[in-house]
Amino acid sequence: MLTVLAGGVGAARFLLGAVEAVDADRVTAIVNVGDDTVLHGLEVSPDLDTIVYTLAGAIDPDRGWGRRDESWRAIGEVRRLADSAGIRADDPNGNDAAGWFALGDLDLGTHLYRTSRRRAGAALSAVTAEIAGSWGLDLRIIPVTDDPLRTVLETTDGRRLSFQEYFVRERHDVAVRRVDLEGREQARPAPGVIEAIREAGVVVIAPSNPVVSTGPVLSVPGVEDAVHSVRDRVVAISPIVGGAALKGPADRLLRELGHEPSVVGVAEWYAPIAGTLVVDRVDAALAGRVEAAGVRCIVTDTVMGPPGVAAALARTCIDAVGTGSQP
Amino acid sequence: MLTVLAGGVGAARFLLGAVEAVDADRVTAIVNVGDDTVLHGLEVSPDLDTIVYTLAGAIDPDRGWGRRDESWRAIGEVRRLADSAGIRADDPNGNDAAGWFALGDLDLGTHLYRTSRRRAGAALSAVTAEIAGSWGLDLRIIPVTDDPLRTVLETTDGRRLSFQEYFVRERHDVAVRRVDLEGREQARPAPGVIEAIREAGVVVIAPSNPVVSTGPVLSVPGVEDAVHSVRDRVVAISPIVGGAALKGPADRLLRELGHEPSVVGVAEWYAPIAGTLVVDRVDAALAGRVEAAGVRCIVTDTVMGPPGVAAALARTCIDAVGTGSQP
Repeated sequence: MLTVLAGGVGAARFLLGAVEAVDADRVTAIVNVGDDTVLHGLEVSPDLDTIVYTLAGAIDPDRGWGRRDESWRAIGEVRRLADSAGIRADDPNGNDAAGWFALGDLDLGTHLYRTSRRRAGAALSAVTAEIAGSWGLDLRIIPVTDDPLRTVLETTDGRRLSFQEYFVRERHDVAVRRVDLEGREQARPAPGVIEAIREAGVVVIAPSNPVVSTGPVLSVPGVEDAVHSVRDRVVAISPIVGGAALKGPADRLLRELGHEPSVVGVAEWYAPIAGTLVVDRVDAALAGRVEAAGVRCIVTDTVMGPPGVAAALARTCIDAVGTGSQP
Repeated sequence: MLTVLAGGVGAARFLLGAVEAVDADRVTAIVNVGDDTVLHGLEVSPDLDTIVYTLAGAIDPDRGWGRRDESWRAIGEVRRLADSAGIRADDPNGNDAAGWFALGDLDLGTHLYRTSRRRAGAALSAVTAEIAGSWGLDLRIIPVTDDPLRTVLETTDGRRLSFQEYFVRERHDVAVRRVDLEGREQARPAPGVIEAIREAGVVVIAPSNPVVSTGPVLSVPGVEDAVHSVRDRVVAISPIVGGAALKGPADRLLRELGHEPSVVGVAEWYAPIAGTLVVDRVDAALAGRVEAAGVRCIVTDTVMGPPGVAAALARTCIDAVGTGSQP
């Protein structure tokens, strides 16, 4: 059994490789919900949807998010109405009426369905299973918690932004001094989360943003302890390659929060809970510093562009646990 | 100044004629919100939207509701997901996750915008003005109230249905024993409603369903009194023609609630507040019984299919008030 702690795009690509490397019904993804938000009254779960759409082959391959063959008629109307009324995205409340979050028509169907089911009392994990089931997916995709957990980024000028406000509206082009995970004290792991960690042959921490993707996953009480208890079987994949994030603000956030934006910083971040860190070949020279941080270092191809890289990376993670647990 | 108490389709067609007969900026529509509902978490106002879309020339001319050149990608996804999960429209909660209410993609844009604006604290009347403004409409379109007012139909088998559950999901093919207007005691007229009635040269009660369209409008405390106070200037147009509703269940509801489903029943219904009732030529023989109910009866063409009928009907209503106030 392979369990993957997952954010969005990077984790989704790794999971595509994982279900090539092992039978899909042996794979469980435990997914970040700190990015979840309510837009226009709709419950939106970007990381869950990115993973489902990617595994279903329904993701837009160019954007890396949202649906393939998407149309934008509904949000176009929203923007027309907002323009007419002078509603701006950058007003003090970050008014979502301005349509700054691009929701495609097909994607809206997912949000309409999820919102209805949630309002009817279904847990997010149950609705996620329904959505994944509609695509015929055999892997398990579980939100880390069914309770509200929200990543809030406090900027150096004192604003408190939801993840989507930070990431989409502000294009992560603002300085952050602090990240809070609102609701974490009250959040309980969703059904199956702790078991999937404890009983996994290998737990992979996907190459997702450690601060705002795997961070919220690990913040749910009980999750980090469970991961720690199987540390020898935990393999993290560095989302930092050559000192930069492949996508998104992981490097910038690490730096702003006082960490080194390199595989060494990632090694220090994960050392308490991961026995192994996989880094890209471009960072081979840093392997010694990674191991000095207290994790075994494996050097391989980690950039999941070319076909086969993701599956090979999954096999590397699995083999890593089979071949020893300490550097 | 012409003020029209309005439901959906019939009222919208009359208003098209009204803005042909007089300058649009002299016309005010006071619109039913008892049909409003929350679907998938979105605030939907069917009568307001039907009027806006019709006056904007954006209505689908064949269906009579929703947008012209509409697409159905989002709701198609909802239905695919519901089918996969076995969610049915006819479960005890009438689960809207089944997608029984057809929301088009363009139409969804209106609901997304309205819901965002409402969640940001804007009153329904303010949002309605924004939406109407985006279409360049010069007439005023005001929801009768900014407060929650919900038409609930109790069926003879004891179920309590929202208007949309009754009208769309059940296709108004169930027997009703009672209609409640939930929230009416607490509802206050929206800004401008009472003035638009008191100061109008003519108040027209559109040929809408008296039970579930103009009924909720008149139920808001203060509205019926205001209409009553200008009774001599109030002209109702019968929605019943030849003993049947042109569209929808007005005849059936009148009968089920103990009223005669004819222009005579309509005359009795409106006599306390309307000085004049306009009936169709096919009901000319009933003019005497209409007047016996206590309203002046005007006989003319009321079926607003052919071009020119709606404008002529508006002129007839205006002239009716100019030429005398009692039978």
